[in-house]
Amino acid sequence: MATVEQMTAAVHGYVEAFEKGDVEMAVALFAPDAIVEDPVGTPLKRGHDEIRAFYAASMATGAKLRLEGPIRCATDYAAFAFRVQLTLEGKMITVDVIDTFRFNNEGKVIEMKAYFGPSNMTGM
Amino acid sequence: MATVEQMTAAVHGYVEAFEKGDVEMAVALFAPDAIVEDPVGTPLKRGHDEIRAFYAASMATGAKLRLEGPIRCATDYAAFAFRVQLTLEGKMITVDVIDTFRFNNEGKVIEMKAYFGPSNMTGM
Repeated sequence: MATVEQMTAAVHGYVEAFEKGDVEMAVALFAPDAIVEDPVGTPLKRGHDEIRAFYAASMATGAKLRLEGPIRCATDYAAFAFRVQLTLEGKMITVDVIDTFRFNNEGKVIEMKAYFGPSNMTGM
Repeated sequence: MATVEQMTAAVHGYVEAFEKGDVEMAVALFAPDAIVEDPVGTPLKRGHDEIRAFYAASMATGAKLRLEGPIRCATDYAAFAFRVQLTLEGKMITVDVIDTFRFNNEGKVIEMKAYFGPSNMTGM
């Protein structure tokens, strides 16, 4: 089982990857067969190649993440709230998001879900 | 599909149920066949009877909830961060939690998961 320390480090690494615009740093947090559903209700990204393409596109918007409140850790899950600032078609947009990461025994993310929708976006 | 307005009202109703200590108000937010996993990793509560017993015990601690940040709404899910204050064995305890609610088409919660663990509790 992943430890609280491993899960906390992964979440901070995720924020840092966006801060640096480092796609490979984000991809390295995930297991090779990981599934990403971002946002919940959209098609799944499966495996490193699809996850890499997804984060390359995300980071191309200049998205930066600011954690809000403590990271919640429950068994092999971490859940965390954050605010994203990004630029889309020349407009600054703010998105309020909650993510859940599920971890495998090696401390890699095997499942990620991002909860947000149109009601959580401002500046559109 | 439940609307953002229905999901938002349900989350506020959940907070209000704890504020009032009204178990039936909490139970009424759930579909008859709903599943509750609180916290994630513990045995599921299934259906109104088990859910009622669970909230009766929760509210007996005097637990009060304060939302932190906006409710995130993604298709039929709402995710929200909050802080709980409760009393256990005479001690005031604070717990930082993130919940996800999944809704059916009638706007009732069919699945609830609560993310928190020992690292999110203070005052123990």
